[in-house]
Amino acid sequence: MAQQKIRVTVWNENIHEREHEHIRKIYPEGMHGAIASFLKKQPDLEVRTATQEQPEHGLTEKVLAETDVLTWWGHAGHDGVADEIVNRVHARVLDGMGLIVLHSGHFSKIFRKLMGTNCGLQWREAGEKERLWVVDSSHPIAAGLGPYFELPHTEMYGEQFDIPKPDELVFISWFEGGDVFRSGCCWSRGRGKVFYFRPGHETYPIYHDQNVLQVITNAVRWAKFNGNTQTCGINTCPHTETPLEPIKK
Amino acid sequence: MAQQKIRVTVWNENIHEREHEHIRKIYPEGMHGAIASFLKKQPDLEVRTATQEQPEHGLTEKVLAETDVLTWWGHAGHDGVADEIVNRVHARVLDGMGLIVLHSGHFSKIFRKLMGTNCGLQWREAGEKERLWVVDSSHPIAAGLGPYFELPHTEMYGEQFDIPKPDELVFISWFEGGDVFRSGCCWSRGRGKVFYFRPGHETYPIYHDQNVLQVITNAVRWAKFNGNTQTCGINTCPHTETPLEPIKK
Amino acid sequence: MAQQKIRVTVWNENIHEREHEHIRKIYPEGMHGAIASFLKKQPDLEVRTATQEQPEHGLTEKVLAETDVLTWWGHAGHDGVADEIVNRVHARVLDGMGLIVLHSGHFSKIFRKLMGTNCGLQWREAGEKERLWVVDSSHPIAAGLGPYFELPHTEMYGEQFDIPKPDELVFISWFEGGDVFRSGCCWSRGRGKVFYFRPGHETYPIYHDQNVLQVITNAVRWAKFNGNTQTCGINTCPHTETPLEPIKK
Amino acid sequence: MAQQKIRVTVWNENIHEREHEHIRKIYPEGMHGAIASFLKKQPDLEVRTATQEQPEHGLTEKVLAETDVLTWWGHAGHDGVADEIVNRVHARVLDGMGLIVLHSGHFSKIFRKLMGTNCGLQWREAGEKERLWVVDSSHPIAAGLGPYFELPHTEMYGEQFDIPKPDELVFISWFEGGDVFRSGCCWSRGRGKVFYFRPGHETYPIYHDQNVLQVITNAVRWAKFNGNTQTCGINTCPHTETPLEPIKK
Repeated sequence: MAQQKIRVTVWNENIHEREHEHIRKIYPEGMHGAIASFLKKQPDLEVRTATQEQPEHGLTEKVLAETDVLTWWGHAGHDGVADEIVNRVHARVLDGMGLIVLHSGHFSKIFRKLMGTNCGLQWREAGEKERLWVVDSSHPIAAGLGPYFELPHTEMYGEQFDIPKPDELVFISWFEGGDVFRSGCCWSRGRGKVFYFRPGHETYPIYHDQNVLQVITNAVRWAKFNGNTQTCGINTCPHTETPLEPIKK
Repeated sequence: MAQQKIRVTVWNENIHEREHEHIRKIYPEGMHGAIASFLKKQPDLEVRTATQEQPEHGLTEKVLAETDVLTWWGHAGHDGVADEIVNRVHARVLDGMGLIVLHSGHFSKIFRKLMGTNCGLQWREAGEKERLWVVDSSHPIAAGLGPYFELPHTEMYGEQFDIPKPDELVFISWFEGGDVFRSGCCWSRGRGKVFYFRPGHETYPIYHDQNVLQVITNAVRWAKFNGNTQTCGINTCPHTETPLEPIKK
Repeated sequence: MAQQKIRVTVWNENIHEREHEHIRKIYPEGMHGAIASFLKKQPDLEVRTATQEQPEHGLTEKVLAETDVLTWWGHAGHDGVADEIVNRVHARVLDGMGLIVLHSGHFSKIFRKLMGTNCGLQWREAGEKERLWVVDSSHPIAAGLGPYFELPHTEMYGEQFDIPKPDELVFISWFEGGDVFRSGCCWSRGRGKVFYFRPGHETYPIYHDQNVLQVITNAVRWAKFNGNTQTCGINTCPHTETPLEPIKK
Repeated sequence: MAQQKIRVTVWNENIHEREHEHIRKIYPEGMHGAIASFLKKQPDLEVRTATQEQPEHGLTEKVLAETDVLTWWGHAGHDGVADEIVNRVHARVLDGMGLIVLHSGHFSKIFRKLMGTNCGLQWREAGEKERLWVVDSSHPIAAGLGPYFELPHTEMYGEQFDIPKPDELVFISWFEGGDVFRSGCCWSRGRGKVFYFRPGHETYPIYHDQNVLQVITNAVRWAKFNGNTQTCGINTCPHTETPLEPIKK
């Protein structure tokens, strides 16, 4: 029996690409297009895209119900994402949809809502070198990589990254300008898995980098729900009147 | 030099006690009164109370600024807590105020906002026996207790408790009716520490129990901020233009 | 392209079954036989067994090199396991072999060596009921189960279980006699994954229970290495003379 | 009532200092002398030293029984530390003694025994700059520091550091030569707390640095046992014949 494909929705605010010619040159199909194009080459993935300017930001009940893993890129449009859609995505994550938050998505409503913190960090745009070190070689998100990989020119994100302690920490970044960053972080929320991955600034061809695309692909496979659908308490608070064992009065 | 006292604010919605004679008999000064009364006996604590019916729920900017650790009991009034006050408490936790969430506070706006999940659970009110087992003997919140302690009659809370993985798990409850529960859970959020403690139903004299009061006292001392005030990124996202090291062009 | 099968070695000390007629009646092929028989029905698994009385306890360099996941049942023979073999298994785990430690294996040399603690617990043999609650519904080891499952008669293991904090906690047991236990615990060690699973006493037909066998099957798939083989530092301490970046003198 | 002082034993192999004139110039009283000298200035600490060349390496049953927190520096003499003493220290940690492992102590018998892994890493001695970033501002070990601190010339330790996932990660190091390292890591083992702190090479005046000394002082206070002494299962496996609740036959 053939295994079912993982249904991925690659979401992007798609603002910088439309506004700036020099960004459009790097990402003629948008950053979502670059990511989706790589994912579509994987035989186990079924990929679609959605963008913020679409009705309901392209994230209708139907689309989310048919999405196993959602990837999220946002920056200039964070405030414009409707709370109703954020709540819808949030409920879907707790119900088991995987979520991969990319780069400036650290400040998105959905990521902050899932983390419970402000998700601040330090940043600098100086085109410096970044080197991402694997610090958990047992982790599937690190599969197929070397001990580290480099990005020649990136925006810098520096600590302290205001996040809850990651359940799993996969990458730590070294920056030429003297900073470090927890660049690959995993959490579970309800039945869903969440992965934050740092690289991805719009003015650099980050989403054409083979290591970056490999990590996103690994993360999609990792984030696909394969847990337990029967537990009570997730998304609800059920009254369970009859005890499983007799209670003495 | 004398060490500064820990400033504790014991917060309670104070609804059940005012509405029901049989609850007022158990807690004539309210549950906040019972908890505060015990904490006031500790020479290292400075204790005040605040309740939901007060202006700004008793949690003005000034009160929060002067609070090192806040304890929270809510149930019937969750929806009535103003979002503005929830956001104010949230910001204060990220800035270092400790927060101890008691019993039905699992469904409070502030706890859900800090956790990022719905915080559901199973429940049953059958007056059954609960036994709380210590599972982390290295933890200060378990100090001064035996290997377990019992509550003869409690409301039951059962798994799956829809919370992020606790950073530290101190207690697991056994229930007569056949359930278990992660009853003492620690997290950090920003600079602040959060402790959830399960016992505390309003119809039982839980907050007169010496073990329960000991745990709350331990938790207050644990939750007091004693970390680092200088890190960037907490509550903000600072632009740091000048790199610490030279960047090649 | 067909995916490679996961190569499982089911290890058992195989002492109680040979010494006691009443145990042999429950497990005519040994506990390893019962476990292997179920695993062999899975199309993605390739299963063999090994026992303590074999040369090198059946765990030669060749066998271990060809093993992706090893399951371990020991009790009466812990002391008789040669340190050389323990060290060999230890090195293989750090190098990526998954290890599933069952029941009384909590006191095996290999588990204690991997944990760094004594791995003690409380125990009682009274044939009482056990109920295992799923507390992490996002976890693949809990797939296909209900919110809990029961074993009508078991030996009791109680807290405090002297283990390092689990990286992931999947099951908590409720016992009729009043105890609780962290019954399904995950850790990574080097490149390898370790799962401890509590059920399994030799005098009860635990390894004929469909839920128990489902958990072991899930755990085998989870424990299979799918991480990164290139990181330095695992099993070694390499001198890396040439820096990646220029160092000012 | 005056609080009891924390009894600290500063342990050092004391080999490099005795063998090399240029090291003795940096540490005329040994590295243990430099550390102890700073700790002795703290009014809440009672400090003694012990070295490897002493009988029983200076770690008699009596000394350990009177030690709340032990700091450990070893390198050239790891193999010469008697297994009996390692086991004695190990038992004392599980029983509640705090342990602070410094720098090359990552490869000590006691640290590897407590971790369960090989504790390898990459290293380079090029006198490069190190910058330690605070990544958990809620943590007492980071108290009193800035957002980071620097060491102008250090030996480099690089990832992947072969350790179990830290319970708490306090510092990440940036190195001039392009590497990163998890430089401040916390674990609990039994009742005891363990902190690994990276800085400390013998050829640099690391233990005269005020930030390094501040961290060690903070860590001593953090590692002091203040938990629960009553739990069963730590260091033992007790048979508990009588159930707490009646068991149906």
